[in-house]
Amino acid sequence: MAAKLIKGAEVAAQIREELKKEVEDLKAKHNLIPGLVTILVGEDPGSVSYVTAKQKTSHELGFYSIQDSQPPDITEAALLALIEKYNQDPKLHGILVQLPVPKHIDSNKVLYAIDPNKDVDAFHPVNVGRILIGNYAFLPCTPAGCQELIYRAYGDPKGKEVVVVGRSNIVGKPMVAIMIQKRAGANATVTCVHTGTPKDKMIEHCRRADILIVAAGVPKYIQGDWVKEGACVIDVGVNRIGKSEKTGKAILAGDVDFESVSQKASFITPVPGGVGPMTITMLMKNTVMAAKLAAGLVKL
Amino acid sequence: MAAKLIKGAEVAAQIREELKKEVEDLKAKHNLIPGLVTILVGEDPGSVSYVTAKQKTSHELGFYSIQDSQPPDITEAALLALIEKYNQDPKLHGILVQLPVPKHIDSNKVLYAIDPNKDVDAFHPVNVGRILIGNYAFLPCTPAGCQELIYRAYGDPKGKEVVVVGRSNIVGKPMVAIMIQKRAGANATVTCVHTGTPKDKMIEHCRRADILIVAAGVPKYIQGDWVKEGACVIDVGVNRIGKSEKTGKAILAGDVDFESVSQKASFITPVPGGVGPMTITMLMKNTVMAAKLAAGLVKL
Repeated sequence: MAAKLIKGAEVAAQIREELKKEVEDLKAKHNLIPGLVTILVGEDPGSVSYVTAKQKTSHELGFYSIQDSQPPDITEAALLALIEKYNQDPKLHGILVQLPVPKHIDSNKVLYAIDPNKDVDAFHPVNVGRILIGNYAFLPCTPAGCQELIYRAYGDPKGKEVVVVGRSNIVGKPMVAIMIQKRAGANATVTCVHTGTPKDKMIEHCRRADILIVAAGVPKYIQGDWVKEGACVIDVGVNRIGKSEKTGKAILAGDVDFESVSQKASFITPVPGGVGPMTITMLMKNTVMAAKLAAGLVKL
Repeated sequence: MAAKLIKGAEVAAQIREELKKEVEDLKAKHNLIPGLVTILVGEDPGSVSYVTAKQKTSHELGFYSIQDSQPPDITEAALLALIEKYNQDPKLHGILVQLPVPKHIDSNKVLYAIDPNKDVDAFHPVNVGRILIGNYAFLPCTPAGCQELIYRAYGDPKGKEVVVVGRSNIVGKPMVAIMIQKRAGANATVTCVHTGTPKDKMIEHCRRADILIVAAGVPKYIQGDWVKEGACVIDVGVNRIGKSEKTGKAILAGDVDFESVSQKASFITPVPGGVGPMTITMLMKNTVMAAKLAAGLVKL
């Protein structure tokens, strides 16, 4: 079978439409405007472009939104003080520090200084703990995006065999924590395979997955004969495997061998264009949730 | 084959011997005496007996140890103030509130008021988050006890197939988080099955487990023909299935059908006498770790 493409940009656009309506409702009914500050240290072009995209989207959705650019030589203490200022600002519900920060700054110290209820990246240990406990307000953007893609394209993962390849703190581990919960969009049997898993077992597990979520960091790692007929394959990998001679742009590949796997799967995310376009939208969703949390409209 | 019994009391005694030496060393080299306060609200006989056992063990190990008994009608505010007092006390490194607390008190509010670095039960979201992130000082006592039993009796779970039956916040979920880490005593391929898993899949997963950890809360749930020849079976269940006519005492059964499973497994924990005797010892281990954390001898 030839898999149906899960187009992240389309799903993301749909979620943004839903969010836009919700933001209008929050304004009308509760006089509540979600507020997001993005903090950028230095001028790394990649980071500038990410932050710009986040600001653009938050404006489109009607957020109150601030871009705070700081020089690359800002001290750690000054950055921590800045975060504390935003922690205290009731108009701001989400605080995002664009990573990476310069090397003289301890990124964990910075991330852990953010009020957990404003930590819309969900990297703070309190939020990681809330996720595993199953009582959370928001999820880290990439695994949350994967969950939305699965639910909206493939369907309810309840009772399905989910196999997560990889155990990073940004994708694999939270993905496991999310999918084992007794909650809508989850409630799956979950296996986590990783670099400690022998290769033969790795293949065995992939082969029995109804839903295969891959964040291995190895280009084209998952082969067509590792995938069950009809599986839903979510490829989180973004690997630069070369440069186009024509355009000079990077050639990207996922962690899945798209050519062979798309012949077996029923649904597959392309790279680029699958998981990637979801992350900013999930950040927006988290910011709306943070605003509702601050206003007492949702409770933990 | 007839399984070898994993005797929790013996393993626990061995760990307490190690801890006793470590406590002597900490006193001699660092003038550091691990301090534990156990807080008991009311006079529930079961809770009194648990707290008494915890105090007895901490005294045996040479801890500075306080038992603080509070009346059942203590207000939530007073209990929170008490915890804050102990949070500030540098001689106390571990704070344990014996559960359950009376119904007029919000137990989560109480548990979450404990300084995470003194939270030797490891129930605080910060500690749950640290565990999943893989940068932790201590683990919740029951899954930590399971990990020790596996490592010391069966051997290194690295690269093995671990199947966790159950997803409670006290056992199943932290067990998954612990065993997927790239750390000594873990690094296993982990599958979590639970009430959302169809029965046929549940059995399939159990059958391929090298290490089967069961916290299902259903007496004698796991059958002999669900278990792989030579597997290591850890039974966390404690179910009262009747009362002895002779003694009037409760008859206990685990979540594993011991009679049939012990014919297949290579190692099995009995109930009682398997996981149960480990928990207080793991609490002691956490208290020693909390003392070292406070003294800067270990870092997160």
